[in-house]
Amino acid sequence: MIQSVAFIGLGAMGYRMAAHLPQHFDTVYVWNRNFEKAQQHATEYGTQAVDLPQAVQADVIFSCLPTSKEVEQLIASVSIKSGAIWVDCTSGVPESAKFLSEQLKLQQVDFLDAPVSGQTIGAETATLTVMVGGETTAFENALPAIQAFGKLIKHVGGAGAGFSVKAVNNMLLAVNLCSVAEGFTALKAHGVDLHAALDCINASSGKSGVTETVLPQRILNRSFPLTFALPLLAKDTGIALDLIREAKLSAPVIALTQSLIQASSDLSNQDSDFSSAVKIYESWSKITLE
Amino acid sequence: MIQSVAFIGLGAMGYRMAAHLPQHFDTVYVWNRNFEKAQQHATEYGTQAVDLPQAVQADVIFSCLPTSKEVEQLIASVSIKSGAIWVDCTSGVPESAKFLSEQLKLQQVDFLDAPVSGQTIGAETATLTVMVGGETTAFENALPAIQAFGKLIKHVGGAGAGFSVKAVNNMLLAVNLCSVAEGFTALKAHGVDLHAALDCINASSGKSGVTETVLPQRILNRSFPLTFALPLLAKDTGIALDLIREAKLSAPVIALTQSLIQASSDLSNQDSDFSSAVKIYESWSKITLE
Amino acid sequence: MIQSVAFIGLGAMGYRMAAHLPQHFDTVYVWNRNFEKAQQHATEYGTQAVDLPQAVQADVIFSCLPTSKEVEQLIASVSIKSGAIWVDCTSGVPESAKFLSEQLKLQQVDFLDAPVSGQTIGAETATLTVMVGGETTAFENALPAIQAFGKLIKHVGGAGAGFSVKAVNNMLLAVNLCSVAEGFTALKAHGVDLHAALDCINASSGKSGVTETVLPQRILNRSFPLTFALPLLAKDTGIALDLIREAKLSAPVIALTQSLIQASSDLSNQDSDFSSAVKIYESWSKITLE
Amino acid sequence: MIQSVAFIGLGAMGYRMAAHLPQHFDTVYVWNRNFEKAQQHATEYGTQAVDLPQAVQADVIFSCLPTSKEVEQLIASVSIKSGAIWVDCTSGVPESAKFLSEQLKLQQVDFLDAPVSGQTIGAETATLTVMVGGETTAFENALPAIQAFGKLIKHVGGAGAGFSVKAVNNMLLAVNLCSVAEGFTALKAHGVDLHAALDCINASSGKSGVTETVLPQRILNRSFPLTFALPLLAKDTGIALDLIREAKLSAPVIALTQSLIQASSDLSNQDSDFSSAVKIYESWSKITLE
Repeated sequence: MIQSVAFIGLGAMGYRMAAHLPQHFDTVYVWNRNFEKAQQHATEYGTQAVDLPQAVQADVIFSCLPTSKEVEQLIASVSIKSGAIWVDCTSGVPESAKFLSEQLKLQQVDFLDAPVSGQTIGAETATLTVMVGGETTAFENALPAIQAFGKLIKHVGGAGAGFSVKAVNNMLLAVNLCSVAEGFTALKAHGVDLHAALDCINASSGKSGVTETVLPQRILNRSFPLTFALPLLAKDTGIALDLIREAKLSAPVIALTQSLIQASSDLSNQDSDFSSAVKIYESWSKITLE
Repeated sequence: MIQSVAFIGLGAMGYRMAAHLPQHFDTVYVWNRNFEKAQQHATEYGTQAVDLPQAVQADVIFSCLPTSKEVEQLIASVSIKSGAIWVDCTSGVPESAKFLSEQLKLQQVDFLDAPVSGQTIGAETATLTVMVGGETTAFENALPAIQAFGKLIKHVGGAGAGFSVKAVNNMLLAVNLCSVAEGFTALKAHGVDLHAALDCINASSGKSGVTETVLPQRILNRSFPLTFALPLLAKDTGIALDLIREAKLSAPVIALTQSLIQASSDLSNQDSDFSSAVKIYESWSKITLE
Repeated sequence: MIQSVAFIGLGAMGYRMAAHLPQHFDTVYVWNRNFEKAQQHATEYGTQAVDLPQAVQADVIFSCLPTSKEVEQLIASVSIKSGAIWVDCTSGVPESAKFLSEQLKLQQVDFLDAPVSGQTIGAETATLTVMVGGETTAFENALPAIQAFGKLIKHVGGAGAGFSVKAVNNMLLAVNLCSVAEGFTALKAHGVDLHAALDCINASSGKSGVTETVLPQRILNRSFPLTFALPLLAKDTGIALDLIREAKLSAPVIALTQSLIQASSDLSNQDSDFSSAVKIYESWSKITLE
Repeated sequence: MIQSVAFIGLGAMGYRMAAHLPQHFDTVYVWNRNFEKAQQHATEYGTQAVDLPQAVQADVIFSCLPTSKEVEQLIASVSIKSGAIWVDCTSGVPESAKFLSEQLKLQQVDFLDAPVSGQTIGAETATLTVMVGGETTAFENALPAIQAFGKLIKHVGGAGAGFSVKAVNNMLLAVNLCSVAEGFTALKAHGVDLHAALDCINASSGKSGVTETVLPQRILNRSFPLTFALPLLAKDTGIALDLIREAKLSAPVIALTQSLIQASSDLSNQDSDFSSAVKIYESWSKITLE
């Protein structure tokens, strides 16, 4: 039985995810590097802003940080309650999940890699998809806590499996961004009506999350709202390529896409939305996708 | 006002598309190279199996043939009724549509390139998506006939625009086939549960027609049912790449995918379903997507 | 026996190539769109600047123009002497060579596609490599004239074969430009001494014309002297890719390189040297190859 | 002053490299896992076959093993003489060189990564190219020993720089293998005489080590003699790609080539020569490069 939960890392996602916890648990600790954010959360949602040593005394400890590096540093700096489950919602590195899983086992702590998808709106409405890697028992024990913000919650394999699925998902998003940009640039060059073409493709076999959502809502309307930064997508495609390399597989489309997203990210501002990856094509063709 | 319609080419798609015409038009001619097919259609659906010279006397003439080459040969061999509209539902070549459009204009015949998507089930239930290129007046005049089998019917641009959209759609399908095969092979190599991963991705930003339909219904269950042959997908990716070349664009993901689908098709039987393109990856990795 | 020769197109290459002809033939006509160039050539080298109708009365007529399109237009505008041999030294399109070969045969004129390599220095010293496509007899008959500026002269196949070899050569140059830029950028990022590395590679299996000449003489010294414009290299890589497409082959490295050179050309000034293709990588990595 | 040298790993390269040492040094230890090879070497060249603990008491210790993994294991198992220099001629991993360099420094041992190129013939004639990473003083001290088998010997940078240059060299070799196979397949498909084409390209800007040596001597004559195994080339292309990833660079041609060589290696026997990488293209096109 989970008596207490903690949430570490109150960024755009974490802040909203943690907001659902008090409805399900009496004791909800929150912590954030910029501590004012934690205090604001406590005021707004009835959580308890505590210092880090206390936060890691909870039964279930969530973390949601920029990269696995921050998670590793944070975990190395604290003494976690024996018997706790650490649920890391970062879009992290599978190798790091395996390492942390081994390390924490020595302290009788379970580690689950549990990245989420669904963006800030999914965090707000507690309808996130959560892909979980780690031991089955730990997954089952942590499930009631994860359900506070997740809708589709799947145990996808052992340590690192959750991060792997997230990386592949984001790689597929990246592939679609590139190929859709290439295809629609060609259509525009040939005088095709892009909106009519999009309607057809969205009713056909070539559709994807990018054609259904990203292209109409972020690109064609030239809004590129920052909800997921392009450098983070570049990082995730790198994680996916590392999965390929570690298994000594041949994945030419993934390898090429990683190069293109990396180049596009290198050419962009740090705070560009992932959808602005298409601008590298616009710089080449002088054709604007609108 | 359309008094008579004709349908030329009663393959898996055409046979079912033509079946809806008698509900809307009194005079429906059908013709097929293997003429028994036309006679069978007449018996089954109340159409009239006629010879080719008579078929091309209809107000609206549909064609649905393997490639633009067959359409060009057929049109070169007949004398079409002046004032007719030729609606070509083949997945054809944009350049050919421009050529035929010019040629037929000399005979006072309008040409529309109007490829369809939705597979045989869409043809059966008259819910096909139809992407139409050509002149607006011709489109408006032919629309009532197209509505017999189409649900979403869009005028996407001038001559060749319909073929262009279809080629790009099928190219996006091809890109997704390759990238999903690459990604899921990596997941399996790392011990991830593919079905659980698929559920997560289909609720996330990386989803596509391939993850939603092709992967679970054709690949993971190892059925590879032949509904759209891999060599035809290879042909369509070639059309898409030619669009890129003609406009002197840079489209690395499309160019690479065309190479991979071409190689995969070259390695397969002629009557392999398009979904078996993933087998080239299986031959490399010795990992079966199931 | 060749009594008279003509040279049409006195650009950077043609001007120097034509200069050798008077040493071997009594009658040498020259013609250029900007006719002052022809007159200057006559003064300088003892050739005869004549109008186009007279130039095409020579026994052997050389042309050296920017693309096959200019050659086609020029040939369509003149009446060539029956029995003449037209030797086109343009870096042209194989399909065009086949077309012109057929056309000229009707006028009893032989056509050879005979592109050259060796740059302006090779033209000056009459040491060009000439790769010739067309009929064997025509090749043998034209050989004494070609020897005026060529050193290695090879009959590589039927009509279009010469252009094909040139296109593939330039594609290989393009592939090496890209891969060398990628590899040396990586070496510099890792703190390696590029000049020492280059010495090692030029004594090893990874060497190429690019590592031996282009990298040290044009790139690392940041000179990028214009001798062969990047848009022309982009055109040639397109010809190579079209060869692939026509034969329905799978050539992923060639297809990708064509995309990269096209993008690099689109980003550059029209009069950039081909070697400046590496600047697309420099714009991504912020690492300068010097 | 170097009094004694040792050579560890008497494979096809090491056996021949070690043979030159007795001409320059009085004390030459050799060691090999299969010890008979060491004893044979002693008999043949006057070296001393000793056990591993004694071998690592030499002033300069060479190693030449399949991968960095074997080097790491071997070094972890021995107690090296303080003040010695370890010169690793393996085609190894730059990260491993940095790690071993740090480790050995603690034991007052210098580590140089010093991979070679020039094949067995270069080893036999003492004309190898040696690309050396590590500290300048160590390089200068070890140089007299390296000169026993090396001709062009370059200090290319700090720890790992030698391995990096070797990896990039072999990647460029791999890129050329793929692009030459693609280009010559296209030429053959278009009826071009491959030998005549090769002569032209070898006198032109597209030439490379592959066109000058590998294509005529290993591929076109269908000999594919095993001197450097394809799986080792696949390993080296992986090292090059890792260099790209670590520096977060975009290198699409390298990334794609790594995928193709990996696939080609996966399809081949373990003991296939690297040149047989072209067979993946032959399996696609049914066109044999001969």
